Amino acid sequence: MPKVSQEHLDARRAEILEGARRAFSRYGYEGATVARLEEEIGLSRGAIFHYFDSKLDLFVELAYADNNRYVSLLTEEGIEAVLRAIAGADRDWLNVLIETEVRMRHDPELERRMAGMQERAQEEQRDRLLASFEQAQAEGRMRSDLELGDVVDFTTVLINGLAVRVANGDPISIDAFVRLVNDALRPDVRELAVPS
Amino acid sequence: MPKVSQEHLDARRAEILEGARRAFSRYGYEGATVARLEEEIGLSRGAIFHYFDSKLDLFVELAYADNNRYVSLLTEEGIEAVLRAIAGADRDWLNVLIETEVRMRHDPELERRMAGMQERAQEEQRDRLLASFEQAQAEGRMRSDLELGDVVDFTTVLINGLAVRVANGDPISIDAFVRLVNDALRPDVRELAVPS
Repeated sequence: MPKVSQEHLDARRAEILEGARRAFSRYGYEGATVARLEEEIGLSRGAIFHYFDSKLDLFVELAYADNNRYVSLLTEEGIEAVLRAIAGADRDWLNVLIETEVRMRHDPELERRMAGMQERAQEEQRDRLLASFEQAQAEGRMRSDLELGDVVDFTTVLINGLAVRVANGDPISIDAFVRLVNDALRPDVRELAVPS
Repeated sequence: MPKVSQEHLDARRAEILEGARRAFSRYGYEGATVARLEEEIGLSRGAIFHYFDSKLDLFVELAYADNNRYVSLLTEEGIEAVLRAIAGADRDWLNVLIETEVRMRHDPELERRMAGMQERAQEEQRDRLLASFEQAQAEGRMRSDLELGDVVDFTTVLINGLAVRVANGDPISIDAFVRLVNDALRPDVRELAVPS
């Protein structure tokens, strides 16, 4: 296949995904009918489903890309960068993601697909994440008196909690928030543990 | 009304609420039909709706009581106590609460009722919460270099993020988690801000 064709295919896929994200954000997953997907994407259902097998495929692909982007931010720029990204993320899209977590409990097919996505993500991303935290510890940028897994869990809770807040439309002073998180993880906080 | 009667009424209300909580936890809000509420509560619909106007009333009352209980824990025993309570909370019930936050966006009546509940909660609770944090600062148990509102927001994000994690059924080492939170808020962490 000539290279220009592959580029064209990739661009078309990206265009479809962006339109689908707009449709999901605007109407929710259930409310994003095929007619509305066509309207937001600007292509016929025939063209859309030539590239993706189903609406669920579109959604899983978007959720996977999001997850990947946040993990990349986390490993390449650190926790502060990902918290700031969440604080500035689209409220409606975050609501769709949170809604999906909830719907999974009543929808075995969705749960199966999301679990498959998370497994795929974990294989690719978990090692990267642990390696970047290990490096932060080795370089003295992060406390090393805690298990890496516990730091990962803390970070995940912060990200999810912040996503819920942004999705609810509640404001937050992200500078103060980041400062508290940085203080929790700074390497010299350990020295305070024993009163002098 | 004689006192014994009021006690009886209160006990009956509490019994109905506990049965309703079991039904919501087991079937979700939508899935908790009147027949299932009757079965879990062990009373007829006539008896149940003599005490509460509707299923929504039952739910709002339970959500309000939960909210109140966590705020009391927070003000009386501190952040660690509430985080440990969330870590040990019922997974299914947390899912119902999170599900409701999501459903509110598509259900104006639910949103209106929950907003009313939150307003009632805020009037009663917000001042208590700020007063307890202020006291913690005054007694040197909490850093005082941040706005109280920012500490409240940080705490809310932690609680919501932890609730999402427990609702998902993902394990967490709560001791390590609590230690990170305590370190973020300890009064002497400020001294670390300027390198010596």
